[in-house]
Amino acid sequence: MGELLGGVDIGATKLHAVVARPDGTVLARARKKAKGKKGFDVVMERVEACLEKACRKAGISRDELAAVGVGAPSPIRPDGTMVNAPNLGWTDAPLAPALASRLGKPVAAENDCNLGTLGEYTFGARAGAGSLTGLFVGTGLGGGIVLDGELVRGRNHLAAELGHVIVEANGRTCGCGHRGCLEAYASKTGLGHRLRREIEERGRASILTEEERVTLGNVRSGLLARAFDAGDPVVTEALEELAWYLGIGVANLVTTLGPDVVVLGGGVFEALGPALIERVRDSARAHTFPEVAFADVEVTLAGLGDDAVALGAVAYALRTL
Amino acid sequence: MGELLGGVDIGATKLHAVVARPDGTVLARARKKAKGKKGFDVVMERVEACLEKACRKAGISRDELAAVGVGAPSPIRPDGTMVNAPNLGWTDAPLAPALASRLGKPVAAENDCNLGTLGEYTFGARAGAGSLTGLFVGTGLGGGIVLDGELVRGRNHLAAELGHVIVEANGRTCGCGHRGCLEAYASKTGLGHRLRREIEERGRASILTEEERVTLGNVRSGLLARAFDAGDPVVTEALEELAWYLGIGVANLVTTLGPDVVVLGGGVFEALGPALIERVRDSARAHTFPEVAFADVEVTLAGLGDDAVALGAVAYALRTL
Repeated sequence: MGELLGGVDIGATKLHAVVARPDGTVLARARKKAKGKKGFDVVMERVEACLEKACRKAGISRDELAAVGVGAPSPIRPDGTMVNAPNLGWTDAPLAPALASRLGKPVAAENDCNLGTLGEYTFGARAGAGSLTGLFVGTGLGGGIVLDGELVRGRNHLAAELGHVIVEANGRTCGCGHRGCLEAYASKTGLGHRLRREIEERGRASILTEEERVTLGNVRSGLLARAFDAGDPVVTEALEELAWYLGIGVANLVTTLGPDVVVLGGGVFEALGPALIERVRDSARAHTFPEVAFADVEVTLAGLGDDAVALGAVAYALRTL
Repeated sequence: MGELLGGVDIGATKLHAVVARPDGTVLARARKKAKGKKGFDVVMERVEACLEKACRKAGISRDELAAVGVGAPSPIRPDGTMVNAPNLGWTDAPLAPALASRLGKPVAAENDCNLGTLGEYTFGARAGAGSLTGLFVGTGLGGGIVLDGELVRGRNHLAAELGHVIVEANGRTCGCGHRGCLEAYASKTGLGHRLRREIEERGRASILTEEERVTLGNVRSGLLARAFDAGDPVVTEALEELAWYLGIGVANLVTTLGPDVVVLGGGVFEALGPALIERVRDSARAHTFPEVAFADVEVTLAGLGDDAVALGAVAYALRTL
């Protein structure tokens, strides 16, 4: 396909659109607030407007887009329907059909973390690795698996929910209701749990003000990075715990699938990647069986930043349409 | 291939050979002690003799075997070399090359649990399922993954070591030295740990005699089944714990890969499968995210019994030679 493609990342709070060439070169980007609370139709209208804006910035007409890919925070069925997006409050939303009819062109939809992983696999620093898994650490922990070049979707397209692999039976309660999920430790939600315990219950000192902690579980990553750089012991220990558990998650992936590359991304790793990655590697090495299986696995930081999902959507549109 | 094939399962204590048709029909079986302590060459001689015996029972000459597949308890490199078999005491043993030269025919070698899974996938009760994972519970816990019809071997052919996925960080120490591996709970070794604690440390009553418990971690599965049938509370609770943890292992596989079928086999499930499988299913359902991802997954007992690895070896020889 020699034409241009559109890619959209529908997040809980914001939309991010790109216009890109089939080789992943981004010609223009645009952002808008998602306004998910206003309902599915409003968001679809905003997705269209966001794409229009990106096309305008790229100096093209929307008609020049050959196809559009779109990612959303939900399991997505083969027909492009979102199963359930708790952060947007939607169930059974007809994402790909609605956008295709609105835009008048082919639309391919997939889960955002699957697309982030596909984006890194297709256009990122480790493009073309045989098998690559992605772990995206933000408020929650999302993941994706590309095995021998193909996304692993599993039965019902519900696989690769890597934040909900159980790493500590009877452990900390996760937002999903289960106990001991990786996400309960290796996410901002997990960090918030630990910070609250250390600061509020145990009365330890921290440079995080009460105001900054008020949305624990949603502390801004930049704030965490500043507290870490300043040597705040409570924040440092909490991030060390996050890295240690994330290493267990990486080890479980290596022990199970033996991927060539594990990519770490999301807000926490965009802000703190260089500070944390060696700790994640050490923990992963120490928890992989046999340890030699870890030797050649590359654990690396995501290369596409905020564009990962939108570019993964472009890659997915190229593959499927 | 219309010819006959040989399949051999090299275990820590015994060899099991089959002569089979390409459709998995077994014409004859033979067994011998492995005598692994006597070294690699002696075992290769015994494998040859075991195959000879199976051919004799099938009424054919060894020359009529088109190819031979062989499974062994070790990661196996693409060249057919065993990486490391702690139960046999071998490192870098040239399994496929040595047997090929001894038998004068093509030999394909793979890890035994990978082959057990491939055997169930190819010839078992759920033959032809798109994706199938196997969990074999004996002294340890071995596993294998067939995804979209292909064995997942991973980088270095070391993947699918499913007994060493960590399900309880900082948990019980496993034979591998790590803490909280699935095998430390869902295996006879894990059972032994719990039985020892309950009976010896806590002084609880059990119908298992001291003599029967002496090799805890290696209690015969038939003995466990009798104690369970007799309602022995200590054994019952220990088996319930095993099923609960195994369910977490199944859930982690479903959350990660979304297979169509999970097959449970090995000595413990051959002896106690009907008594335990519903508990494993309940635990797996309760630990899978999202729970609906578990709805259509079939968790079933292995269908090939002792032939699984040898028939998997036949299937593997058919695929690769």
